[in-house]
Amino acid sequence: MSEEFDRKYEEYRDYFNEGLNKVCDELITVPELLGDSMKYSLQLGGKRIRPVLMYAVGDVLGVGREKLTPFACALEFIHTYSLIHDDLPEMDNDDYRRGKPSNHKVYGAANALLAGDGLLNTAYSMLFAECFKGNEYISAAKFICDAAGIYGMIAGQSADILHENDDQPNEDTLDFIYDNKTAKLLVAAVTVPSVLCGGAYYSELKQFGRKLGYLFQLTDDILDASGEFSSLGKTTGKDEEENKLTAVKLYGLDDCRLRVDIVGDDCHRILDGLQGDVEFLHELINFVKARLY
Amino acid sequence: MSEEFDRKYEEYRDYFNEGLNKVCDELITVPELLGDSMKYSLQLGGKRIRPVLMYAVGDVLGVGREKLTPFACALEFIHTYSLIHDDLPEMDNDDYRRGKPSNHKVYGAANALLAGDGLLNTAYSMLFAECFKGNEYISAAKFICDAAGIYGMIAGQSADILHENDDQPNEDTLDFIYDNKTAKLLVAAVTVPSVLCGGAYYSELKQFGRKLGYLFQLTDDILDASGEFSSLGKTTGKDEEENKLTAVKLYGLDDCRLRVDIVGDDCHRILDGLQGDVEFLHELINFVKARLY
Repeated sequence: MSEEFDRKYEEYRDYFNEGLNKVCDELITVPELLGDSMKYSLQLGGKRIRPVLMYAVGDVLGVGREKLTPFACALEFIHTYSLIHDDLPEMDNDDYRRGKPSNHKVYGAANALLAGDGLLNTAYSMLFAECFKGNEYISAAKFICDAAGIYGMIAGQSADILHENDDQPNEDTLDFIYDNKTAKLLVAAVTVPSVLCGGAYYSELKQFGRKLGYLFQLTDDILDASGEFSSLGKTTGKDEEENKLTAVKLYGLDDCRLRVDIVGDDCHRILDGLQGDVEFLHELINFVKARLY
Repeated sequence: MSEEFDRKYEEYRDYFNEGLNKVCDELITVPELLGDSMKYSLQLGGKRIRPVLMYAVGDVLGVGREKLTPFACALEFIHTYSLIHDDLPEMDNDDYRRGKPSNHKVYGAANALLAGDGLLNTAYSMLFAECFKGNEYISAAKFICDAAGIYGMIAGQSADILHENDDQPNEDTLDFIYDNKTAKLLVAAVTVPSVLCGGAYYSELKQFGRKLGYLFQLTDDILDASGEFSSLGKTTGKDEEENKLTAVKLYGLDDCRLRVDIVGDDCHRILDGLQGDVEFLHELINFVKARLY
């Protein structure tokens, strides 16, 4: 990736973190512990790839960052809730997240459960507040909500659990899990700017988000199977241990690495259909791939 | 309670259940298990006191049932999610709910967690769909969301857990827990019709909901301490076992019974300030009290 990419990524991320920190500063609850545990996970850092994507697409379409920030925050709240609930003992039982103890290791499982519920609910409180601004805002809010829900991310999480120890894994099921568990929120990130400006490049961006989500989950699974803790920030080797249905299980590591290139090319091709300066998005595809090197 | 009250209660409940069943019929997910587990808890029955309250206040204010049903459904989805998460092993670890095995006893803890997340998220998908109808709909939706959130129900659940084994329990903390964990959703039930018709009797109804919530939680705690499984439909004696902060712990059973009458009278007095036919609501106060007899 170019220096220009690094600079721009950092600029997007810093801008988002500033907005998020403002929201966090106002997040003072009784009991304090509730807000503290929410903020702990929100501020563990991370790549902020969803907000960065949203701002970058916003720049292509001419939708300003200020307008996008509440949606980016809501999306990051939802992503964070899903990580907290995923890490719980009854789910993936993961002790680490982003290189730090996971929420329930710090605050206990009951508080972590409520911190997750609280993040999900607060995301929608923020989005309802946006709805007064007009129908396109309602559409964008509903799009995020549907992407996170039982025909989106939660369906993916449910299938993910159901197909642990599946002795007849198949491609369709894997695609379903990738598409819903991972891609739907990335689709929301790249389509919200479009929804807010009358639907420009809506279907192209939707397709781009899906492919990028596939790419992202593919690299995640490869890292889990082959990577070190330091590169992933969470316990590696978990997928095999829990006999999860992953691309690595279905295709093997070598085939997965080939697929990374193919899906990456698909992403580039979709972007070629867009007008405007999409260089940053092209480089972002390589950024996702580069997690493997 | 009069025969007229019973008839009307049944009519409200049946009308709501019909609407809920229609929503459930359309709730077909992949994996099927996700939707099934959500429907299991939604259709365990229960008094449907929140929807009944909403319809009854709607009748007083002249707000039709059709207009209210999406909000009543959303509220019942949220109430049901909170019960599923409350029953989980890391929370109250309760094996029974409404006389039947609780969600995680049937579907396992991971699926129950996701069923709860799914109910919460679907409630908001329904409410975002309502938002296109106008600002008063957005206000009503946001009111429900805030009532369920980290300055409402979730705060109450968090305090409830935090004050287990509290060796210096005090009245303010108990009031906080009652107000947030229980009353806020009842307040939402009775104020949504007001929000939808320009705010008629808004503050009176809010006050009524708070007091009724207090009355409801008070009778619940008395039943837990003294009741039989058959009258509560869930394991009794749990509060003492988990050393929860309840009115029974703070004031003792006899004092609690006196308080039931006092708070019941407060509820009646608030209703006296409303115009229109509030007889059903008066009887509903007695209906809540009658759980003890």
